[in-house]
Amino acid sequence: MYDISGLNEECGVFGIWNHNEAAQLTYMGLHSLQHRGQEGAGIAVSNGETLKGERGLGLLTEAISDIKLESLKSHQHAIGHVRYATSGNKGIENIQPFVYHFYDMSVAVCHNGNLINAQSLRKALEHQGSIFHSSSDTEVIMHLIRRSKAPSFEEALKESLRKIKGGFTFALLTKDALYGAVDPNAIRPLVVGKMKNGAYILASETCAIDVLGGEFVRDIHAGEYVVINDDGIRVESYTHHTTTAISAMEYIYFARPDSTIAGKNVHAVRKQSGKQLAIESPAQDADMVIGVPNSSLSAASGYAEESGLPYEMGLVKNQYVARTFIQPTQELREQGVRVKLSAVKDIVQDKNIVLVDDSIVRGTTSRRIVRMLKDAGAKSIHVRIASPEFMFPSFYGIDVSTTSELISANKSPEEISEHIGADSVAYLSVDGLIDSIGLDEDVPYSGLCVESFTGDYPAGLYDYEPNFIDQLSERQKEYLANHKQYFDKEGNLNV
Amino acid sequence: MYDISGLNEECGVFGIWNHNEAAQLTYMGLHSLQHRGQEGAGIAVSNGETLKGERGLGLLTEAISDIKLESLKSHQHAIGHVRYATSGNKGIENIQPFVYHFYDMSVAVCHNGNLINAQSLRKALEHQGSIFHSSSDTEVIMHLIRRSKAPSFEEALKESLRKIKGGFTFALLTKDALYGAVDPNAIRPLVVGKMKNGAYILASETCAIDVLGGEFVRDIHAGEYVVINDDGIRVESYTHHTTTAISAMEYIYFARPDSTIAGKNVHAVRKQSGKQLAIESPAQDADMVIGVPNSSLSAASGYAEESGLPYEMGLVKNQYVARTFIQPTQELREQGVRVKLSAVKDIVQDKNIVLVDDSIVRGTTSRRIVRMLKDAGAKSIHVRIASPEFMFPSFYGIDVSTTSELISANKSPEEISEHIGADSVAYLSVDGLIDSIGLDEDVPYSGLCVESFTGDYPAGLYDYEPNFIDQLSERQKEYLANHKQYFDKEGNLNV
Amino acid sequence: MYDISGLNEECGVFGIWNHNEAAQLTYMGLHSLQHRGQEGAGIAVSNGETLKGERGLGLLTEAISDIKLESLKSHQHAIGHVRYATSGNKGIENIQPFVYHFYDMSVAVCHNGNLINAQSLRKALEHQGSIFHSSSDTEVIMHLIRRSKAPSFEEALKESLRKIKGGFTFALLTKDALYGAVDPNAIRPLVVGKMKNGAYILASETCAIDVLGGEFVRDIHAGEYVVINDDGIRVESYTHHTTTAISAMEYIYFARPDSTIAGKNVHAVRKQSGKQLAIESPAQDADMVIGVPNSSLSAASGYAEESGLPYEMGLVKNQYVARTFIQPTQELREQGVRVKLSAVKDIVQDKNIVLVDDSIVRGTTSRRIVRMLKDAGAKSIHVRIASPEFMFPSFYGIDVSTTSELISANKSPEEISEHIGADSVAYLSVDGLIDSIGLDEDVPYSGLCVESFTGDYPAGLYDYEPNFIDQLSERQKEYLANHKQYFDKEGNLNV
Amino acid sequence: MYDISGLNEECGVFGIWNHNEAAQLTYMGLHSLQHRGQEGAGIAVSNGETLKGERGLGLLTEAISDIKLESLKSHQHAIGHVRYATSGNKGIENIQPFVYHFYDMSVAVCHNGNLINAQSLRKALEHQGSIFHSSSDTEVIMHLIRRSKAPSFEEALKESLRKIKGGFTFALLTKDALYGAVDPNAIRPLVVGKMKNGAYILASETCAIDVLGGEFVRDIHAGEYVVINDDGIRVESYTHHTTTAISAMEYIYFARPDSTIAGKNVHAVRKQSGKQLAIESPAQDADMVIGVPNSSLSAASGYAEESGLPYEMGLVKNQYVARTFIQPTQELREQGVRVKLSAVKDIVQDKNIVLVDDSIVRGTTSRRIVRMLKDAGAKSIHVRIASPEFMFPSFYGIDVSTTSELISANKSPEEISEHIGADSVAYLSVDGLIDSIGLDEDVPYSGLCVESFTGDYPAGLYDYEPNFIDQLSERQKEYLANHKQYFDKEGNLNV
Repeated sequence: MYDISGLNEECGVFGIWNHNEAAQLTYMGLHSLQHRGQEGAGIAVSNGETLKGERGLGLLTEAISDIKLESLKSHQHAIGHVRYATSGNKGIENIQPFVYHFYDMSVAVCHNGNLINAQSLRKALEHQGSIFHSSSDTEVIMHLIRRSKAPSFEEALKESLRKIKGGFTFALLTKDALYGAVDPNAIRPLVVGKMKNGAYILASETCAIDVLGGEFVRDIHAGEYVVINDDGIRVESYTHHTTTAISAMEYIYFARPDSTIAGKNVHAVRKQSGKQLAIESPAQDADMVIGVPNSSLSAASGYAEESGLPYEMGLVKNQYVARTFIQPTQELREQGVRVKLSAVKDIVQDKNIVLVDDSIVRGTTSRRIVRMLKDAGAKSIHVRIASPEFMFPSFYGIDVSTTSELISANKSPEEISEHIGADSVAYLSVDGLIDSIGLDEDVPYSGLCVESFTGDYPAGLYDYEPNFIDQLSERQKEYLANHKQYFDKEGNLNV
Repeated sequence: MYDISGLNEECGVFGIWNHNEAAQLTYMGLHSLQHRGQEGAGIAVSNGETLKGERGLGLLTEAISDIKLESLKSHQHAIGHVRYATSGNKGIENIQPFVYHFYDMSVAVCHNGNLINAQSLRKALEHQGSIFHSSSDTEVIMHLIRRSKAPSFEEALKESLRKIKGGFTFALLTKDALYGAVDPNAIRPLVVGKMKNGAYILASETCAIDVLGGEFVRDIHAGEYVVINDDGIRVESYTHHTTTAISAMEYIYFARPDSTIAGKNVHAVRKQSGKQLAIESPAQDADMVIGVPNSSLSAASGYAEESGLPYEMGLVKNQYVARTFIQPTQELREQGVRVKLSAVKDIVQDKNIVLVDDSIVRGTTSRRIVRMLKDAGAKSIHVRIASPEFMFPSFYGIDVSTTSELISANKSPEEISEHIGADSVAYLSVDGLIDSIGLDEDVPYSGLCVESFTGDYPAGLYDYEPNFIDQLSERQKEYLANHKQYFDKEGNLNV
Repeated sequence: MYDISGLNEECGVFGIWNHNEAAQLTYMGLHSLQHRGQEGAGIAVSNGETLKGERGLGLLTEAISDIKLESLKSHQHAIGHVRYATSGNKGIENIQPFVYHFYDMSVAVCHNGNLINAQSLRKALEHQGSIFHSSSDTEVIMHLIRRSKAPSFEEALKESLRKIKGGFTFALLTKDALYGAVDPNAIRPLVVGKMKNGAYILASETCAIDVLGGEFVRDIHAGEYVVINDDGIRVESYTHHTTTAISAMEYIYFARPDSTIAGKNVHAVRKQSGKQLAIESPAQDADMVIGVPNSSLSAASGYAEESGLPYEMGLVKNQYVARTFIQPTQELREQGVRVKLSAVKDIVQDKNIVLVDDSIVRGTTSRRIVRMLKDAGAKSIHVRIASPEFMFPSFYGIDVSTTSELISANKSPEEISEHIGADSVAYLSVDGLIDSIGLDEDVPYSGLCVESFTGDYPAGLYDYEPNFIDQLSERQKEYLANHKQYFDKEGNLNV
Repeated sequence: MYDISGLNEECGVFGIWNHNEAAQLTYMGLHSLQHRGQEGAGIAVSNGETLKGERGLGLLTEAISDIKLESLKSHQHAIGHVRYATSGNKGIENIQPFVYHFYDMSVAVCHNGNLINAQSLRKALEHQGSIFHSSSDTEVIMHLIRRSKAPSFEEALKESLRKIKGGFTFALLTKDALYGAVDPNAIRPLVVGKMKNGAYILASETCAIDVLGGEFVRDIHAGEYVVINDDGIRVESYTHHTTTAISAMEYIYFARPDSTIAGKNVHAVRKQSGKQLAIESPAQDADMVIGVPNSSLSAASGYAEESGLPYEMGLVKNQYVARTFIQPTQELREQGVRVKLSAVKDIVQDKNIVLVDDSIVRGTTSRRIVRMLKDAGAKSIHVRIASPEFMFPSFYGIDVSTTSELISANKSPEEISEHIGADSVAYLSVDGLIDSIGLDEDVPYSGLCVESFTGDYPAGLYDYEPNFIDQLSERQKEYLANHKQYFDKEGNLNV
C-alpha cells in the first residue's frame, strides 16, 4: 500500500521548550513528521510574554514560508503540527495549532488522533452558548478547559482530559509551560527528548528527537500528561483508569522506520513481521521477493532473508509527488497509476514473485499493482500481507471509519486473491503480529490496539456505536461471534 | 550520494507525435523524468497548424499549472523538457522548450547535455549580428539552422548537428514533424517508443515509455537523428564519424532503476556492480550492508547477496523535500543534514557496517553520513563505492567541471578514508564497472564514456581545453601518464 | 485630505435576498463600497439550505478571486463586507463576514462601526467560558445571541442589540432570512433597496443600490432592524430609547458623492458647505480655487461658484495606488508625497490660491500639500476647511481615537496656519455645517453626530471614558467648558 | 471617454543617469507614467560594469515586487518602461526593457510608439538568419544596431534610427551611457530633466520629472537623440529630414494634466479647448455642464466657465479598478458599466445637461453614459466633444488601427447623436483644436499630428498602406477629396 487510496496518516505533534531557535527546530521536527500529515502545518511560539502562531495549507514548505518562519524567531518555546484531516474539513481554519488569546491568558493547542465523543460534547457545549470556529474536534478540549471551574490551568486540563474519549495526544503551550497528554490507552504515541543545551522536546515519534540530535528521555504512557517549564519536566497521571493498547498500525504503516515506539524500532518490527510471515505463509517455487515501496520494503527484506529468496527491486516509486493531475479519460486514469509506481520489466519478466505489502484496505491499489506486474511479464504473483486481515473500521485517528470501504469485511483471502488477480493471498496472523512487535505487557493483546483486525475497541465506541452496529457485515459478525472481546463499548475491560 | 551536494542530473527530453492527449501525456512522461532536472519544466505543442508552449520554474507541478496544461489541450504533437542548469543561469528565459516563430515557420526545441564548443560558436554568430536571448547553449543550434543555406529544414538540421560538439540529445517540433538527435558518441541517451494507438514517443529514458504503457522501439544511436511525422518514423545518420561511448554515469547514478539503456536494465547493472564490488573489495568481519538511499540501494543489495551479509535499512531518507531552509547557526547547519537523512540507531548501534554508495565527488556528504552513523553508535564503517574513483571533470552534461571540486583528483582512497572518518574506502575498478554494465561493443571501454574515471574524453575538449590543462593536479597527471588515452582533444580515436 | 495619513474609512456592509446572481451582485455592490474599506473583503451566501463564505485580504479584486466567486454561485442570498480595521488586528481571521455553523443553525454576520463596550462584554463572556477567535468586536454579538435564552433567533438578536453600545450597523444571514440593524443613534447609515425582479438589497450607502440598477426603498432609522425573507420586508424597532445623530463625517468625507443619506445627496451637501465656507471665510485677492482631490473637489467647486473665482486643477492625484514603496532615505520620503499628488506648476505659479480641503486631522498632509504648492511657485495659499475644527477623538467607527493625534486639540487655526506654512487657515462653523447638510430633525445638532467637533458623544463613552478624560488637552477642556453638552456618558439626553 | 473600450494609451519610457537610488526613482517615475500603460512594467539598471533587469505583467506594483526592486539597488543608472500592447502579444517576453548581453557589450532598450515598417524590416532580417524572441517591434532596432557595420554604438544607433519609420521614442542603456531618441516628426514626446544632485532624467512626460523634484531641461525635438553620460548631456540629430508633428492626442487624452508638452500645459490646453468648444457649439437652455471623468474634467470646467453654466459632478467614477469581472448574463453586463461610472440622480434629475467628453471613438461608451444619465432622470443631453471627429485610424502608437472601429468613419454627428441617444452632438473644429493648443510652428497644422481627424499622415503609411486604402469608407473618401493633404505615403511634405 503506497498511496492515499489506502490508509491515511493522522497528524503529528511537536513541542520544544527553551531553545533560542525554537521555531526553526520545530520546523525541522515537523519536517521529520511530515509523513503523518500533508494537508496543513502550523507553528505557535512563545517567549514567555507573548504567544503567536503561523499556519498554512499543504506541505510544510508550502504552509510555512520563510517569511512566516522569520516572523516566529526570537521565541524560546514552540509547538507545531502537521495535519491529515481525520475529522473536520480542509479549510485553513482547521489547521493547527489553534492559538487563543483570552483576557487572562493565551494558549496554543494541537492534537493527534480522534475524539470519539467529540460530537456529543460539542452539541452539549453549543447548547450552553459556546461557539466553535472550526470543524476540528481539537477545539472541544479548549472549551472544556475554559468552562472548567478548576482553580488552575493544570487542574482544568486534567478535568477536561478525563471527559474526552478516543485515541489522542495533545500538545499545549502557554506562556508558562509546555504540556503534553496521552489518551488512557496510549493508542497514539508521544515521546519526550532532551537536547544538549537542556531544551526539552515533545514529539509524536522519536525520529523528531533524532533529527535534532536530541536524546530520548521517555515515552508518555497511557493516561499521563507532562508539564515542561523552566523548573524542568514533571510527568503526572490524570486518570488511573488505563489499559495500554498502543496502535499496531503505528508499527505496521504510520511511523517512520527509524522511530522507536515503546522500545521497539519500527524497521526491526517490520523486518521481523516479514520473517514471521515467511514462516507462516511460504510461497513455493517463487523466484524472488518484491516489496511495495516504501512502507513494505522492511517486511519484504525480512521475508527474503527468512525464505532464502533474492530480494529485488521489481517496483520503482517515483520520488516526486504528482499532485495536479487532470485525468479526463479512462486511458489516462490507468496511466495515472504508473506515474506513481512502475514495474521493472527486466526484473519481473517470466518470474514467480512474492509481493509483500503492509496491508490491504480497499483492494484497489493491490489490484492495480498486481495487474502492472502481470503486464510487465510476471508469471505468478503471491501476495503476502505483513499484517492481519483489515476487517473492522478504526475510530482512533485512522481515516477508515466505514465498514463498506474494507474489502476484508466482506471477502475471504481467497476471494480477495481472485478479486485482485493474484495467484494467492495470505496474511500475518494476529498472534504473529503481536509476537513480531514483542511488547509483552500483561494486558489484552500484550499491550497493542489491534481493533482493525479483531473488532475489539479498547477505548470504546461512543458516538460511533450506532453506525458501527448497523453496518456490521456477515463476515464481521461471524468473526465477532467466534472471538473473545476484551473490551466493552465504553472501553472497560471485560476480564 | 543522495543530494545536490553531489552530482547534479542534467535535463530530460520528451516528445510525442499524434495523440489527442499529447500535452497530458507529455506531462506524465516528464514526471517520470523529473529526477533528471528540477529547476524548470516546459511543454510545447502543435496541432499541425499552430505551435505554442508553456514553461515555468521549479518542479513540474510548480512549473506547469493546471491552467497552463489546460491551455495546451487539443494539440496532437508535443515536446517537453525538465531542466537542470548545466550551463546558463536560472532565469525563466532559459527554461525550455524554446519556441520560435519565424515569418516562414515555427519551431520548438529542447536539449539534454552540454555543447563544448557553444561559446566559440556563439561569439562567431554574434560577430555576424546574431542576437541571443538566453544564456543556454541550446539556442546555438537554432541560430545555426536559421543561418544555414541548406534547401530544407532537415538538411539545415543535419548541417548544424555536424557543427556542434559534446554530449547531447535534441528534440525539435515543427508543424510537420518531430525530430530527435543524438551526439556522435551517444553519450546522452535517447529512445523511441510506440503506443497502442500508433502514437510515437521520444524520450531520454525508457521509463517514460513504460509510464505511458508504450512499447520500446529502439535506441537512437551515435550520430543518428530520427524524423517522426504522419508517414511514420525514419532514422538517419547525420555523420558517420562516430564512436559509441555511452555515459557510464547514466547507469551509475542518473537514470531511474527501471530504465534500460542500450539493452541493459539500470537496477540490474547496479546490483551486478554491487556484487562485483563485493568480490573485488570484501569487508572482513562486517555485520551488515547498508546502502545510501535512494540511488545506492540496488548496489547495496547486490553487495549483500554476494557477501552473504544481511541487507539492512540503517539510513532512512525523508521522502519530503525541504527546500526553504534558513540555517543561520552552525548547530542548525549540522542538523540540516539529519533533516534529509537519518541513521537508525537501533539498527547500527555496535555494528560493523559496509556502507555502499554510488560515488564520492567532493567527499562532503560521505563525511557527514559516516559521522552520523558513528554518532548513532556504529563500531566500524567500511565505505564501498560502486564506481571507480571520480578523478576528472565532466564536460558532457554533468555539473562537475572543475578539478578542484573532485576529492579524488587530489587524494588516494586511504587519504579519503581518513578525511571522511571511515575505517576503509574502496572503489570498483574501471574494468569491474565495464564488466558489470556488459555492453561488449568493439570500441574503447566496450562502448562506454568513462571520462570521469580515466580522463579520456571521447568527444574532445574544445572550449574547455585550456582550463582543463591548467588545472591538472599531480594525481591526475600521474594517472594520465600511466594509462593509455584512446581519444585526442578533438575526440578522434588514437588507434 | 487625500490619503491614509488622514482619516480612515470604516467598513461597508451589503446584503441581497433572492437573486440568482446573488454572489456576483454582492461583488458589484461591494466594489461600489470599496472606498469604505480596503484591507479585506468577504462574501457569504446561502441557498436556503447551506451557508458558506469566502474572504481574503486586500482590495476586493485581490480578496475574492474568480475561483472563489465561482464557488459561491447558485446561491440566492448573500451578505458581503469590505473592511477597514477600526479594531482588531489585520489577520485573515478578522475578515468578515464571519460564518458560524451550529448544531441547530448556521449564521453569517458582518458589521460596520465600532462597539464601545465590546471589551467589557468580551471579558464578561470569557469569564463565563466563551472562546473568541478573532480580535474583532463583531464577534461579541454572536456570543450574546447564542447565550440568549430568548425563544427565537429574532428575539435573541433584539436582546443582544440592546446590550451593545456605539455606532454600528449589522448584516446577518441565516438560511431563512437576511437581517440588518442600526445603532440607537443611526450614527452609521444603512439603506434598503429593491431590484426590478423583486430582490431586496441592504447596503451601507445608496451607491450600492444604484450600481445594481435598484430602487431606493428607505433608510433604516435609529434603533431599527429589518428582516427580509420570502415574505418580503419588515422593519421593527429593538429599542425606543433613540436619538437620531447621523455621523456628519459620512457627509464630509466617508460616503461617495453619488450616495444619498437621510435624503441628502453627498455631493450636493459638500458643494453647499463649500458655498457656506466662501460666505463665512472669503479669501481676499485670491486668483483661483483649488480642491484637494478627490474628496474635496465638490466643496471646492462650491467655494468657486459662490466666490466667483475660477475653479482650477492645481493638484493632480495619481489614479494608481502605489502600495509597495520602500523609502529608505529622507529624500525619497519627500518624493513619496509627490508620487500620490502633484502640483501643476503652470497653473499655480505666481498665483494667490484658495486651497479647499475637507478636514485637517494631524496636519501632516496639509503641510506637505502647502509646501508642494509653494515649491511650484504659488504666491499665497489660503486654506479653507469645509468642516469645523477636528478637536475630539471619535469612537464610533473612525480610526481617530487618541487626542494626541489631533492637531486641533492643541492648536488654534492661526497656530495651525503657521505650522503648515499657509497664509491663512479657516474652518466652516458647526452651525454652517449643520445648515449645509440641512437635516432639520428636532433633536440636538438637527440630527447629526458632530462629536469630533464638539466633544458631545450621543452614544456615550463606556470603555473609552477613562482614557478620554485622562487625555483631555487644555484647548479641549476650554471648549467643553464653554459649550453646552447635550449627552451624558451613557449617551442619554441631558435635556 | 473613460475606459479601455475607447482609446488605449501607449507606453511610457523613463531613464535616469547617476543617482544612488536609480532603481527606486525609476519606480517612482514609472508610477507617474502608469496612465500610459498598465499591462506590464520593467526596470533595467547598470552600475557601469554590469547591466541587468526585472520585469513583470500588470500594473507596476504587481510587475515589480519589493524583492525585485531590492535586487536592483546599488546601481546608478536605469531605464524603465510601462507597457500598453500596441503591437505584439501580451506574454512576459514582450515586456520591456529588453536586456541583451553580447560578447562585447550589454544593452537595455525600451520604446514608446509604433514602427510602421517593422514587419518588412523583420522579414528581411529573418531572411538573413536573425532570430526574434518577442513579437514586439522594439526588437527590430536592436537587430539593426547589431547588424550595422558602423564603427561605434552611437553611429550604429543613428544608422538604425534612420531605417525605422513611424512615431516613436526610444531609451537605451549601456554601461557607458543613457540614450534617448525621438522620431523625425516628434509625434511621441520625450523630455530631459535634471535633479539637484546633478542626475539626469529622461521621460515621456514632464510629470515624471516633477514627481522626483527635478527641473525641466528641454524637449527632445524631431529627429534628435540625446546621449547622457558622465561628461553630461549632448543632443544631436540623426536626420535633418524632419517635420514637427506632435500627436494632438497627447494633449487631448493621453498625457497627464500636469504635464507640459512643447511648452503647453495639458490641463490648460484642455480647459482652453473646452472654452473654444463653448464658443463654437453652445447649448441653449442647458442647466449645467458635466464632464466624463477623469480625462474630460478640464475641458468641462472650461466649457462651464465660458458659458456661465454651473459645473457639476453628475458622473462619479469608482476610483478602484474592477479587473476580474465574470459577467455571464446580459443583465450583469449592463450593470458592469455602472460599476465603473455612476450617474448622480439627485444632481441630474430633470436637468438639461451639457455632457463634455474628450472624444468618441466607437460610440459604445458614449451610448452607455447617455443612457445612464437618462435613466437617472436627465431631461436632455447635449454631447460636446473637445476634439474633432475621430475619422481615421492611427498607426503611430494608438490602439485604433482599423477603420471599421471608428464610428465617425461612417456616421455624421447627427447620425451619431441618434445612435447614442443624445439630443445633440457637436465637435471642436480642427482649427479650434490647433488654436487651443497654440503651438504656432510654421509647418502644417502648426506642428501637430492630427492624422485621426484629417487622414493626413506625417510619417507616411508603409506596411499599413494596403489595408488603409482597401478599407476607406465613403465618408472618409469624401473628406479626403475635399481637404488638402500635406503629406504623401512616405511622409514627405507635399508643399
